[in-house]
Amino acid sequence: MGNSNYTINFKIEGGDPVSVTGYSTESVLDIAKRAGVVIDAPCGGNGTCGKCRIKLLSGEVLGEQSAHITELDASEGWRLACGIKPASNLELFLPASAQAFQSRIRVTDFSGVREKAAFDDLRASLKALGFEGDCGIEKVSVEVSEPSLEDAAADRERVEAALVGKLGVSGVKFSLFALRRLPYALRNGGFKLTLVLRRDADSDTITVLDALPEDASSNCPLHGLAIDIGTTTVSMLLVNLETGDPVTAASGGNAQIRYGADVINRIIESAKPGGLERLRKAITNECLTPLVRRICVTAGIEPEQIYRVAVAGNTTMTHFAVGAPGEFIRLEPYIPVFFKTDALSAHALEFPVNPGAQALFAPSIGSYVGGDITAGVFASMIYDKDTLSLFVDLGTNGELVFGGKEFLMSCACSAGPAFEGGEISCGMRATNGAIEACSIDKGTEEPSLSIIGGEGEKAAGLCGSGLIDIIGELFRCGIINAKGKFNVEGKRVVKDEYGGHAYIVVHAADSATGSDIMISEVDIDNFIRAKGAIFSAIRTMLASVDMPQEAIDDVYVAGGIGSGIDIGHAILIGMFPNLPIEKFHYIGNTSLSGAYAMLTSNKAVKQVNECANSMTYLELSSHPSYMDEFVAACFLPHTDASLFS
Amino acid sequence: MGNSNYTINFKIEGGDPVSVTGYSTESVLDIAKRAGVVIDAPCGGNGTCGKCRIKLLSGEVLGEQSAHITELDASEGWRLACGIKPASNLELFLPASAQAFQSRIRVTDFSGVREKAAFDDLRASLKALGFEGDCGIEKVSVEVSEPSLEDAAADRERVEAALVGKLGVSGVKFSLFALRRLPYALRNGGFKLTLVLRRDADSDTITVLDALPEDASSNCPLHGLAIDIGTTTVSMLLVNLETGDPVTAASGGNAQIRYGADVINRIIESAKPGGLERLRKAITNECLTPLVRRICVTAGIEPEQIYRVAVAGNTTMTHFAVGAPGEFIRLEPYIPVFFKTDALSAHALEFPVNPGAQALFAPSIGSYVGGDITAGVFASMIYDKDTLSLFVDLGTNGELVFGGKEFLMSCACSAGPAFEGGEISCGMRATNGAIEACSIDKGTEEPSLSIIGGEGEKAAGLCGSGLIDIIGELFRCGIINAKGKFNVEGKRVVKDEYGGHAYIVVHAADSATGSDIMISEVDIDNFIRAKGAIFSAIRTMLASVDMPQEAIDDVYVAGGIGSGIDIGHAILIGMFPNLPIEKFHYIGNTSLSGAYAMLTSNKAVKQVNECANSMTYLELSSHPSYMDEFVAACFLPHTDASLFS
Repeated sequence: MGNSNYTINFKIEGGDPVSVTGYSTESVLDIAKRAGVVIDAPCGGNGTCGKCRIKLLSGEVLGEQSAHITELDASEGWRLACGIKPASNLELFLPASAQAFQSRIRVTDFSGVREKAAFDDLRASLKALGFEGDCGIEKVSVEVSEPSLEDAAADRERVEAALVGKLGVSGVKFSLFALRRLPYALRNGGFKLTLVLRRDADSDTITVLDALPEDASSNCPLHGLAIDIGTTTVSMLLVNLETGDPVTAASGGNAQIRYGADVINRIIESAKPGGLERLRKAITNECLTPLVRRICVTAGIEPEQIYRVAVAGNTTMTHFAVGAPGEFIRLEPYIPVFFKTDALSAHALEFPVNPGAQALFAPSIGSYVGGDITAGVFASMIYDKDTLSLFVDLGTNGELVFGGKEFLMSCACSAGPAFEGGEISCGMRATNGAIEACSIDKGTEEPSLSIIGGEGEKAAGLCGSGLIDIIGELFRCGIINAKGKFNVEGKRVVKDEYGGHAYIVVHAADSATGSDIMISEVDIDNFIRAKGAIFSAIRTMLASVDMPQEAIDDVYVAGGIGSGIDIGHAILIGMFPNLPIEKFHYIGNTSLSGAYAMLTSNKAVKQVNECANSMTYLELSSHPSYMDEFVAACFLPHTDASLFS
Repeated sequence: MGNSNYTINFKIEGGDPVSVTGYSTESVLDIAKRAGVVIDAPCGGNGTCGKCRIKLLSGEVLGEQSAHITELDASEGWRLACGIKPASNLELFLPASAQAFQSRIRVTDFSGVREKAAFDDLRASLKALGFEGDCGIEKVSVEVSEPSLEDAAADRERVEAALVGKLGVSGVKFSLFALRRLPYALRNGGFKLTLVLRRDADSDTITVLDALPEDASSNCPLHGLAIDIGTTTVSMLLVNLETGDPVTAASGGNAQIRYGADVINRIIESAKPGGLERLRKAITNECLTPLVRRICVTAGIEPEQIYRVAVAGNTTMTHFAVGAPGEFIRLEPYIPVFFKTDALSAHALEFPVNPGAQALFAPSIGSYVGGDITAGVFASMIYDKDTLSLFVDLGTNGELVFGGKEFLMSCACSAGPAFEGGEISCGMRATNGAIEACSIDKGTEEPSLSIIGGEGEKAAGLCGSGLIDIIGELFRCGIINAKGKFNVEGKRVVKDEYGGHAYIVVHAADSATGSDIMISEVDIDNFIRAKGAIFSAIRTMLASVDMPQEAIDDVYVAGGIGSGIDIGHAILIGMFPNLPIEKFHYIGNTSLSGAYAMLTSNKAVKQVNECANSMTYLELSSHPSYMDEFVAACFLPHTDASLFS
């Protein structure tokens, strides 16, 4: 039959149409990728996740019908983009939901951020320990004599002399950006200007990053950007470097999700020709650029006024942001290209900020314990405690750190993205519309819900904390059993389209999506495996140092699970050990708060690196008891009920 | 009438056609510039040079006929692109000659370079003075243990430890480029690899610029690039940094020429919206990129194997290469943005070499004495002499330096581009086809010519040294008088199309161009003003230190005038003072050889900067006697004949 080519028209809900040539040998998903048409495909296009739904408006395709598409939907033209290839010219409709990560951008004044309280606590701790105000970015006012035929020194040499005189430094460098701006700043400010400079930490030299006429500089505070590059979500904080105050917060879906929901699928994509560049640009061009644009508009500044960047992310995300090959992370013996990087040039990284800015990355300690965790351990302050703490980061996958001043031991478990609503049919992140808490009346089996966004907000899905509550309540009320299977007599229990059962949390008429919000046995099974991975990791780590769970003085819970987490329910379902509830503390997105600390303090950068140096890594898969522990933990709450009595 | 838009089709000789929308308000030259269609326009588009000839194939235009276009040519459709605006859709033919600078690229194995002898002398001097082999770029072989589950350090940390152990340095940085390559280099070389690194001059740290598997590294010598960015011509030398040997030489026209032949027109263009970027990209994208591509193909290396760059150019060219605004250079009090720059990132400059490479620029000392002169003064070694030397750089314009160990005084004169064949109807650079020497038989008035390229090469035009010879011989034979006007009875003297007279050097039948090669009174007048500018500058400089011309012990002649220069003729026409011929030395393109010295030696970089620090600048225009001296020098040889008796 050969390779025919066709015209493929994508009609994109809420966007401009895109037309591209497609070949009979490639899937519609691949054609879309090539054309820059974004379709969420968490599984990376292997047909398992069922998210890349598109509607065939006209034309012929080849490919089998997916089990993820009901007969009714199929009759209306719905298909999975990864499962069909063109057999004629095509007209396709792409619903906004297929581009979910793009619509997930939220930008808020920091005072409206849900985690503000946890963040304010962090700032108080940082201040108490002296991690504050030493980021090395400064503003200096300089006045120079006006040049004349008799005094014809060049602009740079003129300003350099004034700086050396004023600051007593031995050397002055100019970034290319500052050099290019310098003559206008001098002349527009009547030879009075404000220079933004970076002091080198270890030497007596400075680098000028920007030059502004004095008039303009009064309303120009120095800004920095803290970034958390999560596998699912990219979050950032714009920070006033002079006061340390967060100004604006923003987050959006990680655009890499169309290459896979998990790091493994993305690493596989990165190893294809041009793949690493695609993944790198998905971060810089599709996440950082739009988020920074929005954050700057909200804050009323230009991206060039961002003079320092600190980034935390897991090892793979850090590699892709830097453009370093990630492929050896997934091949035994699982070796990253780097644990630590030098301060890197924002311009070289193509980060959309002042080109002279440096980007600092939180260090990794292994392929599966990254900068998000070292930054988080610093932000949790457990490294500085005489007592023993357990730090649990529930993002996409789960990472744990146990210890204190004496030792720090870390491990990573393959919990998957369930805590962030991933791989759950009605799952979503802890943002507006998410059901973040739930109780169920044992008699009526009716749920009472708490929805993020407050009064009048309709439920759109379930975030991690909501899932814990619902599963906990379904179990408490006997609507599901210890294996997570439904009592089919349940009042809101229905048969789902795949032959299993599900509980209707919100009826279609009351939901934001117009569909029932349900939790199915498949969802519950996914979640039980996620919580089982966490619990068994805790057990294995304690066993490796021969300690009982009572040795844990405090548990710090971090990550995208949401501040609504009900620890009682989490213990009830066997996710956390049965310790007094007052020992548990939810401390928010510590990857981002650690990046914030690095952004505002060079001393904090040093300390994060020291935390990394002192952390050991426990490889769970090579630990003999881990698999048994995991299997035992895949019940509600556990096969060994005595652990939760 | 308003602003109408039309479709403008450019048919380009030897190139692909280009179609673009043009407006009735813009000249065809401006439309071409916008479309990226290159048309030489040395005057910058003000109608004076007559070089932007295009042929109208179909369509209507508005605009008066140029005096530069003959009736016959006009009837065939020839127009000046700068003088016409579209009044309908147009079809235009663009001859290769309109893109002359693009066809001027020449790349040669260095052993074939005409100036090799002068260059070999320079290398011997550099070696004698210890300016050799200290560029700080090194190759180091490292072998590391293969990683395993038990020894899971990251690639970077593994190699860093080996480097610290081997070299005893305190810090190791990796360029982004090296970091991205590192894992492949390690695994493709069986964990044996060769690292290219730069030692910081002042500290105990190194930066890794490249990582290569050991197998590949044996045929990979380290290369650097010396660049002379001239107003008319960009020249470069690819150098083996391990031996100091030049490998390949290349030169091409400066693509900025379409914005003007002289720096003033280009500065005016640079101040327009987007102009500075156009001028910067004309250097990086249109000169450096094609030249480096050609030079690398010839040498059999990749551009990423160029690890260090040294650049010399006049102040304006340096500003444009760096992307710094040049507009204040031409406005009183004529202040550049910088005299010296830090070592700049090749990646930030968009130079087509290893992105971790640094580019070093020779320092300027004023708006009109640039890095080409400080590099040249170093290469001439006059700064190191107990005797007094005169250094004369005859490029586009002329710059002079007088002095020795005790003092160095510099000045610049507006000689224009005549020494490089500019503003001369049949002028050209000293490359193949150029008439570089000439004698005329007084009886027959027939010329004997020496043409660059040797046996069988047909004459294409006149380079600077050829012009000196022909004007000298025409004067000696009485074919022109002291004012440069022809004896109309001369045997080869004809009336030219502008009403003046001209001498036919080569008849159309024998020339490479198929047209007569002539020298006209306008040409001679241009040349006399150029030589007068040089001679009067020498006189004024000597007068300012109250010295006679006999105080000059040596005269070093540098620049694009060509190695064929006949000093006897140059004295005869009153270009140089009447000193014994053995005091004159032609030393080639010293801007390039100074850049070569900086490329191969950090000590040389320091010395060039010291030369710059010790040079004073004499502003001729503010010197009372200069204008009188200039007027007096605009004769053959001079109004004061006693100076040449």
